[in-house]
Amino acid sequence: MERRAMETLSENRSFGGCQGVYRHTSEATGTEMTFGLYQPPQAEFGKVPVLWFLSGLTCTHENAMTKAGAQAFAARHGIAVVFPDTSPRGEGVADDESFDMGQGAGFYVDATEGPWAEHFQMRTYVAEELPRLVVDRFPIEKNRQSITGHSMGGHGALTLAMTLEDRFASVSAFAPMAHTTQSEWGQRQLAAYLGDDPAAHAKADATLLMRDVGFNGPVLVDQGTQDQFLDKLKPEALAEAIASKRQQGTFRMQPGYDHSYFFVSSFIADHMAFHAEALLP
Amino acid sequence: MERRAMETLSENRSFGGCQGVYRHTSEATGTEMTFGLYQPPQAEFGKVPVLWFLSGLTCTHENAMTKAGAQAFAARHGIAVVFPDTSPRGEGVADDESFDMGQGAGFYVDATEGPWAEHFQMRTYVAEELPRLVVDRFPIEKNRQSITGHSMGGHGALTLAMTLEDRFASVSAFAPMAHTTQSEWGQRQLAAYLGDDPAAHAKADATLLMRDVGFNGPVLVDQGTQDQFLDKLKPEALAEAIASKRQQGTFRMQPGYDHSYFFVSSFIADHMAFHAEALLP
Repeated sequence: MERRAMETLSENRSFGGCQGVYRHTSEATGTEMTFGLYQPPQAEFGKVPVLWFLSGLTCTHENAMTKAGAQAFAARHGIAVVFPDTSPRGEGVADDESFDMGQGAGFYVDATEGPWAEHFQMRTYVAEELPRLVVDRFPIEKNRQSITGHSMGGHGALTLAMTLEDRFASVSAFAPMAHTTQSEWGQRQLAAYLGDDPAAHAKADATLLMRDVGFNGPVLVDQGTQDQFLDKLKPEALAEAIASKRQQGTFRMQPGYDHSYFFVSSFIADHMAFHAEALLP
Repeated sequence: MERRAMETLSENRSFGGCQGVYRHTSEATGTEMTFGLYQPPQAEFGKVPVLWFLSGLTCTHENAMTKAGAQAFAARHGIAVVFPDTSPRGEGVADDESFDMGQGAGFYVDATEGPWAEHFQMRTYVAEELPRLVVDRFPIEKNRQSITGHSMGGHGALTLAMTLEDRFASVSAFAPMAHTTQSEWGQRQLAAYLGDDPAAHAKADATLLMRDVGFNGPVLVDQGTQDQFLDKLKPEALAEAIASKRQQGTFRMQPGYDHSYFFVSSFIADHMAFHAEALLP
């Protein structure tokens, strides 16, 4: 197999480990893609487990990497963290005028409809291509992976976890888009990316997946009570589904918190400890 | 005394407390100024001590507020943190084409020379006007203050601490500009802002102040060994001065770290604990 080129854009020492930013040409999206990867100090001595952090609307690989505060706990627990971008980008890539569709808003699905299908293959990118790349190039254990995300990234984390059987040991989410088929954040985008096949939409809806298949492992969800997007996120649907499914999981409403990274960073320690418990012997 | 107007730009819940951003018209600078203030949960029940975090070149109030990770430890210790801007800003405010002079580069001095003197009164703003404002408007104890900063802000923290007798219980710095009168980061700016009076320059040089007066309390300085600006920061001069002065203090060279916020966030826990020990009974 040909080793594809990967470029190091930056590497900064962080909590005794290394916060890197890398760029490569993606087969899945047909564009250059940039991602962040934090390697904890333990990675110097052998392979480490990995946590995927999927970000929300308008974010690049950079927002969570600089604002979520994950590195302190990744270093403490000895877990690598990958921060993928949220969509393909560039001049030749389809886009939309609104901030919640097109570039910066890939919704972690493989688009089947024009003009999106050409580059918007974010599910394949995040679920297949990027895992192969990071396992190949970095000291990361292929068989110890967990996933989390914020907002659209919470939707991505939950839907990937429930559709990639036995891939992830645990899944968590911060203020996830919880019920995309019943929300302004989902209906329009899924129709554009996936057409009108209800089965395709259902595989991109965390609540429907929870009702249907659930997750083979522990689930943690945090949601702020003062989130300005509660009507679009629909946490109540997911909370109900977790309970109805008898899913092993914890759903927390956090008083006073909004949708920002100040909310994410306030609870990142809990999420990192939750994943560490699932990932470490 | 007339209560001057202050506008709330945002307030986000963070680690059980409140990360606010506020704007007011400054008498010192003659411009609108924006600052961040984190109030820990303990501020709901009474006055709390305060730590000043002064930022570096090109930063606004926002960089450290979102990237340094101070809030977790401010909440743990019950300490408020103020994040001032680094200069006056706006269309009518003098500026320079380079990133290290003019807007975003106030150097925490009161300019005496044209065209800077009109608005660049950052020492008075940070040392006098903003403390009065935050003590007046928030539950902050006037007599329990400490100060820290990064790069140009480390220079600000150290020089303010050594020239405002008994104001601060402790001072720390991340990769401070340590010897401005002997550096590209200092000579040109101090000449522009302060003219050619050697006494004025000396009061804006942490190493000269350490040799001359020192600090009446503990000092903590962290410096990365891979900092890309070591030749401009001149940490060796300050380290020598601390030892020669027999100053109570700790100077740490941190292997592998550079000048970024990944360095700052890696050691913010130590700095917050250091200040907490000085500020809390």
